Amino acid sequence: MPSIDLNCDLGESFGRWTLGADEALMESVSSCNIACGFHAGDPDVMRRTVRLAGRHGVAIGAHPGLPDLVGFGRRHMSVTPAEVENLVIYQTGALAAFARAEGIRLQQVKAHGALYNMAAGERALAEAMARGVASFDPSLLLLAPPGSELLRAGQAAGLPVAAEGFADRAYEPDGSLTSRCEPDAIINDLPTVLERVVRMARHGVVVTRSGVEVPMRVATICIHGDTPGAAGLARGLREGLEREGIEVRAIPG
Amino acid sequence: MPSIDLNCDLGESFGRWTLGADEALMESVSSCNIACGFHAGDPDVMRRTVRLAGRHGVAIGAHPGLPDLVGFGRRHMSVTPAEVENLVIYQTGALAAFARAEGIRLQQVKAHGALYNMAAGERALAEAMARGVASFDPSLLLLAPPGSELLRAGQAAGLPVAAEGFADRAYEPDGSLTSRCEPDAIINDLPTVLERVVRMARHGVVVTRSGVEVPMRVATICIHGDTPGAAGLARGLREGLEREGIEVRAIPG
Amino acid sequence: MPSIDLNCDLGESFGRWTLGADEALMESVSSCNIACGFHAGDPDVMRRTVRLAGRHGVAIGAHPGLPDLVGFGRRHMSVTPAEVENLVIYQTGALAAFARAEGIRLQQVKAHGALYNMAAGERALAEAMARGVASFDPSLLLLAPPGSELLRAGQAAGLPVAAEGFADRAYEPDGSLTSRCEPDAIINDLPTVLERVVRMARHGVVVTRSGVEVPMRVATICIHGDTPGAAGLARGLREGLEREGIEVRAIPG
Amino acid sequence: MPSIDLNCDLGESFGRWTLGADEALMESVSSCNIACGFHAGDPDVMRRTVRLAGRHGVAIGAHPGLPDLVGFGRRHMSVTPAEVENLVIYQTGALAAFARAEGIRLQQVKAHGALYNMAAGERALAEAMARGVASFDPSLLLLAPPGSELLRAGQAAGLPVAAEGFADRAYEPDGSLTSRCEPDAIINDLPTVLERVVRMARHGVVVTRSGVEVPMRVATICIHGDTPGAAGLARGLREGLEREGIEVRAIPG
Repeated sequence: MPSIDLNCDLGESFGRWTLGADEALMESVSSCNIACGFHAGDPDVMRRTVRLAGRHGVAIGAHPGLPDLVGFGRRHMSVTPAEVENLVIYQTGALAAFARAEGIRLQQVKAHGALYNMAAGERALAEAMARGVASFDPSLLLLAPPGSELLRAGQAAGLPVAAEGFADRAYEPDGSLTSRCEPDAIINDLPTVLERVVRMARHGVVVTRSGVEVPMRVATICIHGDTPGAAGLARGLREGLEREGIEVRAIPG
Repeated sequence: MPSIDLNCDLGESFGRWTLGADEALMESVSSCNIACGFHAGDPDVMRRTVRLAGRHGVAIGAHPGLPDLVGFGRRHMSVTPAEVENLVIYQTGALAAFARAEGIRLQQVKAHGALYNMAAGERALAEAMARGVASFDPSLLLLAPPGSELLRAGQAAGLPVAAEGFADRAYEPDGSLTSRCEPDAIINDLPTVLERVVRMARHGVVVTRSGVEVPMRVATICIHGDTPGAAGLARGLREGLEREGIEVRAIPG
Repeated sequence: MPSIDLNCDLGESFGRWTLGADEALMESVSSCNIACGFHAGDPDVMRRTVRLAGRHGVAIGAHPGLPDLVGFGRRHMSVTPAEVENLVIYQTGALAAFARAEGIRLQQVKAHGALYNMAAGERALAEAMARGVASFDPSLLLLAPPGSELLRAGQAAGLPVAAEGFADRAYEPDGSLTSRCEPDAIINDLPTVLERVVRMARHGVVVTRSGVEVPMRVATICIHGDTPGAAGLARGLREGLEREGIEVRAIPG
Repeated sequence: MPSIDLNCDLGESFGRWTLGADEALMESVSSCNIACGFHAGDPDVMRRTVRLAGRHGVAIGAHPGLPDLVGFGRRHMSVTPAEVENLVIYQTGALAAFARAEGIRLQQVKAHGALYNMAAGERALAEAMARGVASFDPSLLLLAPPGSELLRAGQAAGLPVAAEGFADRAYEPDGSLTSRCEPDAIINDLPTVLERVVRMARHGVVVTRSGVEVPMRVATICIHGDTPGAAGLARGLREGLEREGIEVRAIPG
């Protein structure tokens, strides 16, 4: 029976501010990446989110970001490889500590926002991130875009890796994501999303905006949790996948 | 042969700003408590300091503080027990990750500044801190003032604990530290400091400002690293202790 | 015709996080206090909120808070008078700059959360805050609880002051607010709120939880903007006051 | 009599951390740019530095930076023009408030680090910065590199502008600064520095690393205050300039 992981970035509240339908999303995803305090999240939110994941049997990941709270970690910053390595160790260690306090295994690491994009495309940063994760715990699964520098760096560092696709984003013929500035970049229609994810899970391909079918072998699919309707989309997607005979489950550790 | 631990709070630089003679102090102390990013320290400083301690064979501790960078964690804040528990787990986990990345064992936890004082005196905060440390790693040694709520809470939580004395501070008859606002609160004269530490290490007593001898059974002595002359005082103290036949070494884990 | 000011604390979003129904509340209040970046608000949110107030003809105030973003400025911190004076100047100046950029007059200053409470009760902090405001602009109106140290300090510093009452909070016989921990501390029922505010506006009295009528001479009434239903309560209150022949308008500068 | 302004970036301490020989440098410079809390500086440091400048009769500038404390505002960030405009207004307003509290006129604005470089080279950011300054106070002098987008944007916005040269940096034939990564990028030798500054002040030219003389018409010369020996270099430079008959004074406002 084919299977796929549905992941979502959660725990992105901060202090007085609430963001994301974490409770509802936990019902549908098989793994979650929890913000670690640099771009979102605080110690109390992290603890709460780890517990919530534990109650739902959802696998836990660290979701380290750039030190840019006001920019939500979405702004490119000219950080050095050493800075990336150390901020990944710091944030992963902090999240791992809450997992340990709750008696839960930390399963994976996925970088957030600009850090994810930078590490996907720049070899030195990709290697720094992989080195950081591997030096902390070489059994952690590293999530990265298929074909990216980050995926390669993770493999080279001896980490288990998982290529990640996006349920709600259009793709270009070269396998990259369509820029959010383009029309049709975001796909919110459940039947279309489901059809695309089924094709990725079953055949390892995706149809681009221009109608071409390109390879997209992914082991995990990201659902964006901070958009309106995310919880409904996630539920519909999970149910649809199961109807299609595709099991939704975290990647075995 | 009697022994005592000399500890110092290190890694208190931040970004562009340097604080403390870490290199020189590492030569004299047997353990160090490394700031974890909330009151001082950043991921790069933490990594560097862990490495430095490793090279010198100095035992490593986490030094969690209140989230108050501009106030250096010295300002009392009305935090809840749950907040204390979680900020201790977060910061200890972050520091532990650097220790793990460097292949070094994390040995101890000592709270910083206002957090140390608050947890020493308020039972609910003391219990929260002990709970946080124990849930992360029950083999970690907790440093606390002798007779404090924090020491008791650590013991109740099943943690190994170490009572801490201060080399350069005067004491009151009730065993508390003389307020820094008082004259004679700070003792910088090496022979006096040495004489006092020898007495604590050998006989478990200290002479108060008023000349009374009171019990002061401590397993570790703190040297303040951010004062001028700290490195010289530490070296003199270590040499003096060894001349007196008192071994300076970290507390066995 | 009697009149009263309805004020609300707005602009409490931060970066990616949204808080408060600012647009809707601007339709009902006559003045607003805008967060200045320490406990909430960021430069973009401040600019947007100043503009919004300008479009609605709502008078603008600075709403300085303690440097505690994760705690939303609600946690007591042991700050010195000099620190209070300077953080008030800093934040008021920053907000005043946006007012100036938008061609709007800054009308008032109201401290936020723990800073408001601390300055209300501690003379040295009250004087520091008044000194800070007066040194920046002695024509600024200072909001403070009736009978508080802060009100007295504002008057002594030569500032215009306005005593502030709360629409949705119960009072004790000594004129202090009922603790939020008590039952009946919060009053959300519009007719009751309206009746209480009318009595404060017209007769300068309020009925306490225990049924006693005590003096409560206030020139401005605070509506909490971050509670559910705040916008509806504000609209109902404004309409009700106008029906009662009480004009809702900012305090003349 | 020819004249030139010597400016220095000061007030770059933060909380417990001290940086720069501000007291000594104030004796030699004619204007200073004071950090505003985003990359360095805090409200207490800002107040103290404004006072110090006032006592020395040194003209005061705001020195806004990117919101990157741990990176000291030296890391490029992908900020939008609107973000730049608002962070300039915020920081300039905060510093202006301390000037006002001390009865001193704010004279100029100079961006810090990465923000200075980004605004120098990118037109949209240059215009945003100029717009921010002009909307707050169109009489403020804007410092910018000669020939830069920022200088042009300042002029277009109707601001008085001053082209800035660097006393201790080598230049390339196109008038740009030699990268710090190159050998000979930094010039610390007083006679050489003096000779170069005299030539800029008197003839509006500088000799590049390759020995070519290129135009360098500047009204103000920056001395870096955070390098060892900065205070001595500044004193020597000022004395040398005066011996050469070049008056050191702030640009008339």
